[in-house]
Amino acid sequence: MSEIKDFIGQNSNRFLEELFTLLRIPSVSSQKEHTEDMHTCALKYAEFLTKAGADNAKVYPTTGHPVVYAEKIIDPEKPTVLVYGHYDVQPVDPIELWDSPPFEPEIRDGAIYARGANDDKGQSFMHVKAFEYYMADNKLPCNVKFLIEGEEEIGSPSLGQWAEEHKELLACDVILVSDTTMISEKVPSITTGMRGLAYMEVKVTGPDKDLHSGHYGGAVANPINVLCNMIDRLIDDKGRITVPGFYNNVVELTEEERAMLGRAPFDENEYMESVGVNALIGEEGYTPLERTGIRPCLDVNGIWGGYIAEGAKTVLPSFAQAKISMRLVPNQDHKVIAKLFAKHFKSLAPAGVTVEVEEHHGGQGFLAPITSSVYKAAAKAVEEVYGIEPVPSRGGGSIPILATLENILQAPPLLMGFGLERDTIHSPNESYLLSQFYKGIESIILFYKYYTQE
Amino acid sequence: MSEIKDFIGQNSNRFLEELFTLLRIPSVSSQKEHTEDMHTCALKYAEFLTKAGADNAKVYPTTGHPVVYAEKIIDPEKPTVLVYGHYDVQPVDPIELWDSPPFEPEIRDGAIYARGANDDKGQSFMHVKAFEYYMADNKLPCNVKFLIEGEEEIGSPSLGQWAEEHKELLACDVILVSDTTMISEKVPSITTGMRGLAYMEVKVTGPDKDLHSGHYGGAVANPINVLCNMIDRLIDDKGRITVPGFYNNVVELTEEERAMLGRAPFDENEYMESVGVNALIGEEGYTPLERTGIRPCLDVNGIWGGYIAEGAKTVLPSFAQAKISMRLVPNQDHKVIAKLFAKHFKSLAPAGVTVEVEEHHGGQGFLAPITSSVYKAAAKAVEEVYGIEPVPSRGGGSIPILATLENILQAPPLLMGFGLERDTIHSPNESYLLSQFYKGIESIILFYKYYTQE
Repeated sequence: MSEIKDFIGQNSNRFLEELFTLLRIPSVSSQKEHTEDMHTCALKYAEFLTKAGADNAKVYPTTGHPVVYAEKIIDPEKPTVLVYGHYDVQPVDPIELWDSPPFEPEIRDGAIYARGANDDKGQSFMHVKAFEYYMADNKLPCNVKFLIEGEEEIGSPSLGQWAEEHKELLACDVILVSDTTMISEKVPSITTGMRGLAYMEVKVTGPDKDLHSGHYGGAVANPINVLCNMIDRLIDDKGRITVPGFYNNVVELTEEERAMLGRAPFDENEYMESVGVNALIGEEGYTPLERTGIRPCLDVNGIWGGYIAEGAKTVLPSFAQAKISMRLVPNQDHKVIAKLFAKHFKSLAPAGVTVEVEEHHGGQGFLAPITSSVYKAAAKAVEEVYGIEPVPSRGGGSIPILATLENILQAPPLLMGFGLERDTIHSPNESYLLSQFYKGIESIILFYKYYTQE
Repeated sequence: MSEIKDFIGQNSNRFLEELFTLLRIPSVSSQKEHTEDMHTCALKYAEFLTKAGADNAKVYPTTGHPVVYAEKIIDPEKPTVLVYGHYDVQPVDPIELWDSPPFEPEIRDGAIYARGANDDKGQSFMHVKAFEYYMADNKLPCNVKFLIEGEEEIGSPSLGQWAEEHKELLACDVILVSDTTMISEKVPSITTGMRGLAYMEVKVTGPDKDLHSGHYGGAVANPINVLCNMIDRLIDDKGRITVPGFYNNVVELTEEERAMLGRAPFDENEYMESVGVNALIGEEGYTPLERTGIRPCLDVNGIWGGYIAEGAKTVLPSFAQAKISMRLVPNQDHKVIAKLFAKHFKSLAPAGVTVEVEEHHGGQGFLAPITSSVYKAAAKAVEEVYGIEPVPSRGGGSIPILATLENILQAPPLLMGFGLERDTIHSPNESYLLSQFYKGIESIILFYKYYTQE
């Protein structure tokens, strides 16, 4: 143990310097202007993997942003861990709310502040450093492969095909991922399930041009009013999604399963305070943790239409648009849901408007058993570092590609995440606690130990 | 008659050149970046008035954008016409839909294309030229005053106070305005009533920062979904506005009055085709022309919230905003309505969000009698130019300041407008037919003649 802590302690400054190099690259996968940055970031990642001791580190082109792959095969007979991570990040908008520039990482109050500090540069980089620990004196106890992609934040549109084409290269026994959140530093947890995602964009068009709202208001359907009406009708009074067939494949948990998930500590007041609201909402009959963990939901992620600049303009706009996503639970097929949504949404349109619906991206949810040897090894490692047995938890977010990789590689994912809610990933001032970064490296090192001792 | 036509024919090119000088100045009153342009435009207007023969042309500062005033007093015993117009224009957004730059006027297919071509530079400038006709050989039959303001498109926030302070200067017998629309070139009309306006901006705030929609979706109220719900509840299934007390002072027209307004020709198919919709909507029990003329309505003029750029971002945003305006009918007080709206809108907010409501600007509607001598003089002038007796009509738009000026100056407004629906004011590709520009000048010249002959 002390040897691991020494390794981390002696190298901690260098680890941060290296991570900052990655954080300075604005690898926003959803914005075309950053295409070049994606390549730069992938190359830098490959460089760090090589330096840490990996072989064959390479940046592979895909139909989208490139994939980084590297490996250390010590013995084909030994088990193989595939580390999955992503080097792409979310957009920084709204930029004006950042306290420091998103791509100029800095440390404040014991945390790294930067876009990607946690999600997923900070978390994925812990694996490079844990790997380096074993490589430093040639003690790697199993084979390790790295798959670091550049399209997680946009739904990994290219990785499925690439993984299918590189099935042999990626062959493994477990897919190890740090891209999730713990309940808290005092209540470490391991994610055993995540929600799927269907992300749609809709457009409601009324008149063929913007009209004067005084001349036409009252007689011509206003696309914004119509869109609001259609969006409002997507969720009923009980907080249930109205898309016909939406709940068909949703598995209702037994009382026992719900009781087990209910053991996770949850303080409603603390939770509300942490996000600055005075009340929670959601589907009738479920607790807040169930609503974000085991139940699907629908959120408008963006809406725009008409005059949105300073001052007033009396316009009856030609169109209004929205980005609408649904979080799905395991067993709901995002492709089926996207079709059901499109059909239903169009059916809500009144006369006088036309409606377009397209799917941005999607992914299946997944569930992992807590009885597996990989889960047990991870739990033992985390317990040793945190001094408390971790709680199995269900994550509300989505890593759509995981179900795909699990299916192609026939290996289970293990989600050892070290993020905290305070990190506000996807938001301004994303951060990652230094203590979690170092404890994460330590936990991963121990995971390899217990996983190969079994 | 032929003398008037000769005057216009011989000077038509110069008239256009002068008007284009005004149209090239981007005097957008709602945008701070154009503050300097407002002054430039006001000065240019004063210069044209002086050149046309007016005395004391002056640009007066106000608490907002400046006011242009000029006059020609030939005999204090004679009646005085106050010409009201405005040199400010609407924003040009969405700029990408313009076929030619909005502030580089050009003539295509017999029409001037530019922001302000009609509203109101083109229309107000006709009065300068009609005035010039009489000044050219010293035949002005009455006193004329010009009041050209720079804040009409933002609800004239400063003009009321300025007019109150300059009551004596502005004293008049009729307020003559060209800032409205005719039914068509073949069906000339004179506007005898306009709707009032209450223009609000609302903001719904949920969490104190943007959240990850996967982690929180389903448990934390999404401000966009909430805003859509609240907006949807502002209008009921019968197309009626749900704000309590909203209809209290709305005067129901008698069957006879409705029948008279119904005489205005209206082809529903042509109307739908002109704006590119396949159905009309609106308040149950009223015709389309009634819905835009004699009934109030509510339109969302703009909405925004969350991620609205390219691609997808899985965000549960902190807030969502909208600009919402209500067109009012005479007798509805916009200040009362704004208060009722704010109270009602806030009452629609569910737990978990806070709501802010502010009023942008507003104005009262008004009605003018068709039995007055000024109306009769205008009707006679228009009939002489168009060969058809004009129809009295009710305009759906608003010139909020008119009710205020009427009240301060105790003089009735007369709305001789020469715009057409095809001009798409407030929209991209605003235009003004040359034929209407010239016929407008001719009609105004004749109005002075018949008004002073009475």
